[in-house]
Amino acid sequence: MNRCEIGIIGLAVMGQNLALNFARHGISVCVYNRTRERTEAFMRERVRGEPITPADSLEELARCLTRPRRILLMVQAGLAVDQVIEALLPFLEPGDLVMDGGNSHYADTERRMEALAARGIRFLGVGISGGEKGALLGPSIMPGGTPEAYALAEEFLLRIAAQSEEGPCCAYMGRGGAGHFVKMVHNAIEYAFMQGIAEAYDFMKNALGMPADAIAETFARWNEGTLNAYLVELAARVLRYRDPETGEPLVERILDQAEQKGTGRWAAQAALELGVPTPTLTAAVIARTLSHFKADRERIAAGFPWPDRRSEAADPSAVTDLEAALNLTVLSAFSQGLWLLHEASRAYRYGTDRTEVLRVWRAGCIIRARWLIFLREILREDPEDPHLLFHPRFRQELQGRLPAAGRVLARAFEAGIPMPALRTAVDYVLSMRRARLPANLIQAQRDAFGAHTYQRIDRPGTFHTEWEEG
Amino acid sequence: MNRCEIGIIGLAVMGQNLALNFARHGISVCVYNRTRERTEAFMRERVRGEPITPADSLEELARCLTRPRRILLMVQAGLAVDQVIEALLPFLEPGDLVMDGGNSHYADTERRMEALAARGIRFLGVGISGGEKGALLGPSIMPGGTPEAYALAEEFLLRIAAQSEEGPCCAYMGRGGAGHFVKMVHNAIEYAFMQGIAEAYDFMKNALGMPADAIAETFARWNEGTLNAYLVELAARVLRYRDPETGEPLVERILDQAEQKGTGRWAAQAALELGVPTPTLTAAVIARTLSHFKADRERIAAGFPWPDRRSEAADPSAVTDLEAALNLTVLSAFSQGLWLLHEASRAYRYGTDRTEVLRVWRAGCIIRARWLIFLREILREDPEDPHLLFHPRFRQELQGRLPAAGRVLARAFEAGIPMPALRTAVDYVLSMRRARLPANLIQAQRDAFGAHTYQRIDRPGTFHTEWEEG
Repeated sequence: MNRCEIGIIGLAVMGQNLALNFARHGISVCVYNRTRERTEAFMRERVRGEPITPADSLEELARCLTRPRRILLMVQAGLAVDQVIEALLPFLEPGDLVMDGGNSHYADTERRMEALAARGIRFLGVGISGGEKGALLGPSIMPGGTPEAYALAEEFLLRIAAQSEEGPCCAYMGRGGAGHFVKMVHNAIEYAFMQGIAEAYDFMKNALGMPADAIAETFARWNEGTLNAYLVELAARVLRYRDPETGEPLVERILDQAEQKGTGRWAAQAALELGVPTPTLTAAVIARTLSHFKADRERIAAGFPWPDRRSEAADPSAVTDLEAALNLTVLSAFSQGLWLLHEASRAYRYGTDRTEVLRVWRAGCIIRARWLIFLREILREDPEDPHLLFHPRFRQELQGRLPAAGRVLARAFEAGIPMPALRTAVDYVLSMRRARLPANLIQAQRDAFGAHTYQRIDRPGTFHTEWEEG
Repeated sequence: MNRCEIGIIGLAVMGQNLALNFARHGISVCVYNRTRERTEAFMRERVRGEPITPADSLEELARCLTRPRRILLMVQAGLAVDQVIEALLPFLEPGDLVMDGGNSHYADTERRMEALAARGIRFLGVGISGGEKGALLGPSIMPGGTPEAYALAEEFLLRIAAQSEEGPCCAYMGRGGAGHFVKMVHNAIEYAFMQGIAEAYDFMKNALGMPADAIAETFARWNEGTLNAYLVELAARVLRYRDPETGEPLVERILDQAEQKGTGRWAAQAALELGVPTPTLTAAVIARTLSHFKADRERIAAGFPWPDRRSEAADPSAVTDLEAALNLTVLSAFSQGLWLLHEASRAYRYGTDRTEVLRVWRAGCIIRARWLIFLREILREDPEDPHLLFHPRFRQELQGRLPAAGRVLARAFEAGIPMPALRTAVDYVLSMRRARLPANLIQAQRDAFGAHTYQRIDRPGTFHTEWEEG
């Protein structure tokens, strides 16, 4: 009887590629898919001598595995995860480990973890980033749950993870739903990063009048500097790609309605729930939502002229400003995401080590970027800094870029270009450096119309005033 | 035996004032409060011959009422509402009506409505706005539930509601949780309106160097024009009020940490859930959240110098620009709130008539404003316009103010003043008038790293591309 070391349930592209990745690292895999045709096609078309065994049923998969069993679910987040767990349970024994490698909501993960713990089954919520290619060649892996459950999987996960100079991009993210929470924040930062890049593209195209090739060159050049990042490199590649039929840049033929699968929205909702300000992460979610109303926008645009001032001459200083502005957006997004992780770790008792999070994001994942080295360096100096803004070097990086960001925003406005990620990033920084905000007037008004009371800056206590003409 | 026409449970200030309001309109009221002392104090200190009868128990309250009973709960939203309903149920009969006048979450309201319907009890979720004074002298009332339940309460509610030239400020808001949903959106607009006012105050104080009195005068003058609104008038009054001890404007002594009770956050979460872009409503919630981190802000401010350029000379054109900018913020907030109502009404089958919503907001409530006349007028021309942006006159009002808003934002940036409500309002307008947004690049990137596919503008279908160096 074939004894496999790990079972994978669900053979969509991610499941297939992870199976091949495990197998190519010498870990024997048993795979199962609800429709047998997909398993057969996978074995026939992609498996070339790797130690991968197909199973025709969950029972067969369970029988095929060494004990304690290690099973990775790669099925669609939501109901399907519950259904597979339910169907699998009769074939599991206490001590076995189930891992959910999908984009599940952290609250669902905690619920499943508790339900399975009651039956002696271990459970890990495992965030996996890197897309199809990462799954095959080395993803960034964010597992959360009990340390004991993680210990059962650690060796295998470390072997298939992406490698950076700082080691394999997999580490224990904390208790409960920590793994999926960290992955959710990763995705929210990804949304903001992509929105920032999209705004830079919009600015170059519509404020500076640059053609797609020149924009691609600019992103490629930025990728050599502080903005060195997978998404910046990818922007250059995508912008260079020409539609084989028309010979024109393909990106210009793509519909401008951004899709989303829910993790960005969950992060925005979690931030509201936890009382953490993440304006740039939230703005990126809203920008995708707004993009959806294409027919509305077209109808409004027809009746809403705006100068749309565009320079025709090359303007290198504007491009330099824009590079600084995108850096500011990215740094603000990381600051907000790290803050959200900090508060979640406290509120949900994850015990997440954010320096490990930053290390795990160094390679394999979508938001890998040179800035992560710097961010980790300064976070290690003060691991309790919620948002990095207490660190002088982080503040300097922001401060030095603010004037350029202001010039970009002014010019974008003239050209009628919305830049929600950059604007909220700038406002976030300006707000966080204001010892005094005008919320005192809000408090006074709330007390005046609702007797909600207020506090004072010059003495302790809670006060109420009759504000009628004084 | 005394037969009262309505029962009120919960004698905090709102409950007391509503009881007096009913009684002064000739409606006999039976009141109950969990702690008897408060009922006694209310009867002793505030009731002067009005037809108000105290009850010592829920049973007594139920016995005291004409059938079918009409009972208004004025207890804290959340668990307390469920507890009171549970305790009250043994004394109710089929056909009786329970109304929840607190700021309950619309989903809780739907749940309670269904549970009570199963026992033949009618239930209305009733949004009530106007603060203490409104409750006493005439609030704006937003009831939702079945038409039959509303019919039972209508006559009484119309009598105590605020009056405007367009009739009493109470109307049927739709089925299910519609009443509480409308009130939640009201509060979200209130947050944005107050944030816009706070930003204008910050700008006048810190960019233009105006003293509190001059700022108060400005708000008072604005209140005579397009910005005629309760909150603008209130800002003037609050800013004029001097601390009796120091003789200085009291508002300057108030702690700049804005509180919130949850309705604004719920609205932001509902908008994310429903896929409606409400950036300005959401920004106002986030701004309150951010204001909370006062100690963090003080620490960061000390190490983050910024020019804080302030003009010392009076600058009437800047104040005129600012007035236009605040109008833009307010109009954007209404546009987003109405859009949210539109989508909620469709998704949850409320059947809300938004022209009635705008009419009900005309008097009594916190966001009453002259703009509501205009908004209702144009919405009546095309009641299906989701966000009013299809209407040329609404677009004109925005467009004419954009240049001024841009000048304010540029100057605010120079002075280091964050203006999240105004910035998101401007970006919202600029985004909604863009036939083409840069979301095509986001879709291309998603397809490149995750094979998420994309659509094209020049032909139907769903496409995937291998984006490797083309």
